[in-house]
Amino acid sequence: MADFIEGKRPVIEALRTGVPISNVFMADNVQKDPLINDVLRKAKRAGVRVEMVPRRVLDERSARGSHQGVIAKAAPFPYVGAGDIIDASLRYAEEHDGRALVVVLDHLTDAGNLGAISRSAEAVGACGLVIPNKRSARVEASTYKSSAGAIAHLPVAQVSNLVQTIERFKKEGFWVAAATEHADQEVWDVNLKGKIALVVGNEGEGVSRLVLEHCDLFMRLPMEGKVESLNVAQASTACMYEWLRQNR
Amino acid sequence: MADFIEGKRPVIEALRTGVPISNVFMADNVQKDPLINDVLRKAKRAGVRVEMVPRRVLDERSARGSHQGVIAKAAPFPYVGAGDIIDASLRYAEEHDGRALVVVLDHLTDAGNLGAISRSAEAVGACGLVIPNKRSARVEASTYKSSAGAIAHLPVAQVSNLVQTIERFKKEGFWVAAATEHADQEVWDVNLKGKIALVVGNEGEGVSRLVLEHCDLFMRLPMEGKVESLNVAQASTACMYEWLRQNR
Repeated sequence: MADFIEGKRPVIEALRTGVPISNVFMADNVQKDPLINDVLRKAKRAGVRVEMVPRRVLDERSARGSHQGVIAKAAPFPYVGAGDIIDASLRYAEEHDGRALVVVLDHLTDAGNLGAISRSAEAVGACGLVIPNKRSARVEASTYKSSAGAIAHLPVAQVSNLVQTIERFKKEGFWVAAATEHADQEVWDVNLKGKIALVVGNEGEGVSRLVLEHCDLFMRLPMEGKVESLNVAQASTACMYEWLRQNR
Repeated sequence: MADFIEGKRPVIEALRTGVPISNVFMADNVQKDPLINDVLRKAKRAGVRVEMVPRRVLDERSARGSHQGVIAKAAPFPYVGAGDIIDASLRYAEEHDGRALVVVLDHLTDAGNLGAISRSAEAVGACGLVIPNKRSARVEASTYKSSAGAIAHLPVAQVSNLVQTIERFKKEGFWVAAATEHADQEVWDVNLKGKIALVVGNEGEGVSRLVLEHCDLFMRLPMEGKVESLNVAQASTACMYEWLRQNR
């Protein structure tokens, strides 16, 4: 999560979309204009403390020099452990005829895609998202906007070893299904019934070879046009809804 | 289409992604750096003429004052007529067991969504896109990037009256299917076999009431989470792949 959000409109946007904010710092000589009043109103509604500080404190904390008299400090994103997602999935499966979905992102680089996938995952009832803790897009303040707020309702685990986590899911009865253009089978021919960990790959190279070696199922979306690949968020969404279709 | 693209990197990006450029204008006193050399190389490869002009000509044409000595003039996007898309669809249907897909965008406002939908539409083999010529996102230079180049392969018709165009599709044997959260049926229960015009609505309000009155089929994607709606590009992609699944 980006630590500091600076500027009047970005702070308003963060408060509006539900980014967890621990503190708002405001220059004690700031001019009360409609935007500043909006910051104060929204912070109050969200129960966020507004601290008046000398302007030079903001100047020192500002990364981009564009704080306009206001900086919000984002609270760290409350990542969960992979075990929490497994527990939630098993509970969900019991209540939903045995179905559960977890989405594993193999080193996505684009924060916008992470947000878009979160939104769709939350919409199909996924129990969580797994991302690696290195070389990967992570949850930032902007993810609240790009996920339309869905990220606040979706558990996300940040893990140090994707392969180990995948093996844990397998031990708990999940089938691990990779979306990859190299698959022989189309997504509709793969059995996605039950507890599925859907693995999607990075924007450039797809799912890595090492991770693929640990997957059980391989599926692709057919490409009928001239462009080589779908956007990863679009592809994930189509796969997630196919999981839901098969599990109705 | 944005008429002028200014600045070294934006011009390189436009040439790289295949934006149709009619002319590149370069300040005759421009410093030859690696980026300028890249502009010259890419323009030559694309067969685009580079015209050396006095810097003040660029200053006059620049909208944002950030031309850095180079401006590209985009050629107008080659929109087709709705009749062209109908003709192409009928030919496509003959060669593909009777299936054809056209996507109708009811006043989308976000250019990024237009690009994302174009990319997925091209991937499933859609025969074209229909957009209104007013109060709607249109094809811009940025669409080449947001569609990963797919927009260059997808016919787009810009029409003055969506309802009349929908009626034309119906006369040609299309079923007009609206994706709307107010539908009773889930997308999987709607018969999408054959020639389908998929209607998707604007980001805020969905498909307009007037357009809905002219649709034959109504379908929704189930929402299992707490967030109210999917992103329109994600929803469209799921529906398009469901069309492809039913038509295999």
